[in-house]
Amino acid sequence: MSSPGNVPVKVDRRVKIAEVVLRCLVCGLGVLVAALVGTDTQVKEIFSIERKAKFTDMKSLLFLVVTNGIVAGYSVIQGIRCVVSMIKGRVLFNKALAWAIFSCDQVMAYMTLAALAAATQSAMLAEKGQVEMQWMNVCGIYRSFCTQIGEGIVAALVVSLATITISSVSAFNLFRLYGGHKRITNCGAW
Amino acid sequence: MSSPGNVPVKVDRRVKIAEVVLRCLVCGLGVLVAALVGTDTQVKEIFSIERKAKFTDMKSLLFLVVTNGIVAGYSVIQGIRCVVSMIKGRVLFNKALAWAIFSCDQVMAYMTLAALAAATQSAMLAEKGQVEMQWMNVCGIYRSFCTQIGEGIVAALVVSLATITISSVSAFNLFRLYGGHKRITNCGAW
Repeated sequence: MSSPGNVPVKVDRRVKIAEVVLRCLVCGLGVLVAALVGTDTQVKEIFSIERKAKFTDMKSLLFLVVTNGIVAGYSVIQGIRCVVSMIKGRVLFNKALAWAIFSCDQVMAYMTLAALAAATQSAMLAEKGQVEMQWMNVCGIYRSFCTQIGEGIVAALVVSLATITISSVSAFNLFRLYGGHKRITNCGAW
Repeated sequence: MSSPGNVPVKVDRRVKIAEVVLRCLVCGLGVLVAALVGTDTQVKEIFSIERKAKFTDMKSLLFLVVTNGIVAGYSVIQGIRCVVSMIKGRVLFNKALAWAIFSCDQVMAYMTLAALAAATQSAMLAEKGQVEMQWMNVCGIYRSFCTQIGEGIVAALVVSLATITISSVSAFNLFRLYGGHKRITNCGAW
């Protein structure tokens, strides 16, 4: 298997292995986030009234579960494709396919980050409350519920960082198809 | 000025102009977001008690203002560099510099998106409330305050989309430095 562009074969192989590992990580942790947050409930009796906290009470947590579910499924497909192409040593000529992979990876990276940011914001409000808005800190009531959400958010942070790294790798895989000279004139010049 | 890699000179020039336009847009709208959200206040009398809503009441709005201020300042510097390098037709040899620009652009893209997602989540809670959490819809009280925040969020969305596009352009500018062949073998193969 030859090395593309001016990248040493050894470095190129390491990038490929890192990509497979990251995609497996995203898949595993994506499922974990969806399971941790999606199954999280707690029942409390407040003034003789039974109240139940569940993840669908906050739209941002629902968004987190759906996003991580999607990214886990997508990572399975991409991971299998990566492994098969490594084993068979297949060669990519097609810029359109490279663009499709790059675009999907970008969407996944931005989606997971947006879901993480929104969920973290909700979690912070639930944990600390917001006196000025008269929003109470519901985590004072639903402690174990909030702890499990917190664990889910930590896992989602790792998923997000991994998808961001993967999107850089796929940018590398795409845009080196446009290289031809080592000299370059562009807006990034100086 | 020669065209880098296997990209036609005409296309390359258009990419450069688009980058300058986008950086100017980010700068202008970044300042607008910071001004709209950062100066937003409303005073209301509730049961004879005067209450004031301000953007610092929500940490996510403070994050939105700071992030957009930073990205606006960064865009001025990058915009000037872009224009000067276009006029002088300077040539980039330095991969380290291309990496630095790419990394900064990536940070800006992810930062603006995270700030936007967190602020949107807070704004949704303020607009709709969350009955299950006993969080009231404060926008029912502070209508003009919320409207101005909403305008800021729309502008922040455009900023975020523009920084995401810029980060793709700088990925293109960086990774084509690693191209050498049109044939490529990588994990993106099939």
